[in-house]
Amino acid sequence: MERPTPERRQEIFRACARCLNGHGPRRIPAELAALAAAAALAGDTGPDVYGKGGALEALERDVARLLGKPAAVFLPSGTMAQQIALRLHAETARCQRVAFHPTCHLEVHEQRAYSELHGLEAHLVGRRDRLLELADLEAVGEPLAALLLELPQRDLGGLLPSWAELSAQADWARRRGVALHLDGARLWECAPFYGKSYAELAAPFDSVYVSFYKALGGIAGALLAGSEALVAGARVWQRRHGGNLVSMYPYALSARVGLERLGKMAEYHERACRIAARWRSLAGVRVTPDPPHTNMFHVYVPVDGERLLDASVQLAELESVALITRTRACDVPGFCAVEVSIGDAAAAFDDDELETLMRRLLECAQAPGSATRK
Amino acid sequence: MERPTPERRQEIFRACARCLNGHGPRRIPAELAALAAAAALAGDTGPDVYGKGGALEALERDVARLLGKPAAVFLPSGTMAQQIALRLHAETARCQRVAFHPTCHLEVHEQRAYSELHGLEAHLVGRRDRLLELADLEAVGEPLAALLLELPQRDLGGLLPSWAELSAQADWARRRGVALHLDGARLWECAPFYGKSYAELAAPFDSVYVSFYKALGGIAGALLAGSEALVAGARVWQRRHGGNLVSMYPYALSARVGLERLGKMAEYHERACRIAARWRSLAGVRVTPDPPHTNMFHVYVPVDGERLLDASVQLAELESVALITRTRACDVPGFCAVEVSIGDAAAAFDDDELETLMRRLLECAQAPGSATRK
Repeated sequence: MERPTPERRQEIFRACARCLNGHGPRRIPAELAALAAAAALAGDTGPDVYGKGGALEALERDVARLLGKPAAVFLPSGTMAQQIALRLHAETARCQRVAFHPTCHLEVHEQRAYSELHGLEAHLVGRRDRLLELADLEAVGEPLAALLLELPQRDLGGLLPSWAELSAQADWARRRGVALHLDGARLWECAPFYGKSYAELAAPFDSVYVSFYKALGGIAGALLAGSEALVAGARVWQRRHGGNLVSMYPYALSARVGLERLGKMAEYHERACRIAARWRSLAGVRVTPDPPHTNMFHVYVPVDGERLLDASVQLAELESVALITRTRACDVPGFCAVEVSIGDAAAAFDDDELETLMRRLLECAQAPGSATRK
Repeated sequence: MERPTPERRQEIFRACARCLNGHGPRRIPAELAALAAAAALAGDTGPDVYGKGGALEALERDVARLLGKPAAVFLPSGTMAQQIALRLHAETARCQRVAFHPTCHLEVHEQRAYSELHGLEAHLVGRRDRLLELADLEAVGEPLAALLLELPQRDLGGLLPSWAELSAQADWARRRGVALHLDGARLWECAPFYGKSYAELAAPFDSVYVSFYKALGGIAGALLAGSEALVAGARVWQRRHGGNLVSMYPYALSARVGLERLGKMAEYHERACRIAARWRSLAGVRVTPDPPHTNMFHVYVPVDGERLLDASVQLAELESVALITRTRACDVPGFCAVEVSIGDAAAAFDDDELETLMRRLLECAQAPGSATRK
């Protein structure tokens, strides 16, 4: 049994000449040198100091405008941005209860900080296996301070509601006096599906969180946009959270560079659709959403996840290609799930090759004894 | 009245060829290029991902060892590090009350986050105008979860207690079952005063926060060191605070470069002592501590703060020297206070020149009509 450790596996994938997901592995020296060049080109205006000045303040101003909101604040993480937004809505409403989907980041990935740090109560609305629907909201009897909607919904493969459904939910919130918050961790990726500007997409929401990594490829960082009053309040909570760092220019500069990818979102989406169509044609493979709504989709593969990764390691060693680097177990025995996010890296493959590579992976993973290479 | 705005004033100072404080203004393109080179030299191990791997994990391990603690976690800010440490001590003690000096960062600069986010109660010990003393602690009747000590105490000019006094306070805490936390925002700067290793300085404390900017010159970032259990708990709260960023390698790399300045702390301290001695000899000027305990000291100058800054702007424009860039009002009328922190930049001056420049500033600020330059 010579299966590599998970860490070693990731090293093997990272060393590949080509990979499918995102923009490829980060090469830190080259990336920092590119940021240095970008900073020189923009004219060095000095560092931001505790949130003021430099590339940070310019970024806040420009992204607020892009989202059609009066103001915005850059924050180290979406975790911080969303807790702060919900806390502010709760204080305005004098109500501690906020609503979100059962797979919401706040429920799943933040160690219940909304409760532990902010004393908020969560009302989980809708079913884990599908998007929130208007009928789910209409069934809520309790008063709510805010409703969080995630566009697109990552845990459902980047699924999006129709604009009509979204508008109906926003109307419900307005009628009920419930503040509407947008978890836009992947908002940039939605524009091709809706065919709307970012300001139009953000318009129904009282507060909007967006991220600068994921499809934009920045190093880290988030932004919370909304009214002047909301953002002023957010700056106080930013300080309380320990998110008002003396300087964040590496993040602000990489976010600025990342925004140049906004023009590629339609291309990423189209490519995701083509790859999903090819892979769906393979025996037993399912994709969701089908076709993809954004640059991402989930693939359900009729093989054990560890076997699929073993096969992917073999492929990496033979071809220097990192096709699948992580899998998730499924409740259907013998199936695993894979998340695909298309960015710049996929351009190194054509569709035929990706179909062939995926077929090879499946055959290898399904072959007897494939999990125990000598 | 042609007094420049505060922003314009800082631009003028930033443009000077020489400055007194710290390591000089940040030149972002050069700084990022240097980090890129450092990353290449160290061998690119890839980014840290949510706190694991890369330069971040190596930094945590090495600084934990330097501080003689079993474990450490890198955090975006000291604000986050210290709240987390105190929250953990409070949970262990099942007591919400923590004690610190009235000028503690948590009391003065964090919008009372310890209460708003963590439900902690502050017991302020000691007098605002002097260091905490054992007698202050002995007067505390209530149960305490933790005591925070700041070494050196910034708002008192970087004042340090004797090692005997510090040990007595640590003994008091141990006897009372009170956890001892070190606010070591400027701990690196203390070593010359005590003549002890960082592990010896950290030994009396259950948790230690250190910073990577200030005298080290990193971009931002902090570290919390302590037992394995404390650090494991801190990682949970780090996530709750929104401080578990997808990647922090720019900060980790700049911290690593900054640690190379540890060998210069004695030199910075000695230089601070020499400058303080020269300036103290000028009419009406007082310095504290006298002599300085670290690389920093506060200067009390018998002129109005705005006039002193006007004079400093004049000097900047004539000589391209930024000597004093900020002042603080004092309760004694006609006095202002200036904080001096010596780093690499001061090496561009000799002591005679610094005495002459300070005398010129005072004369200019004291001259009639000096505040209204034509």
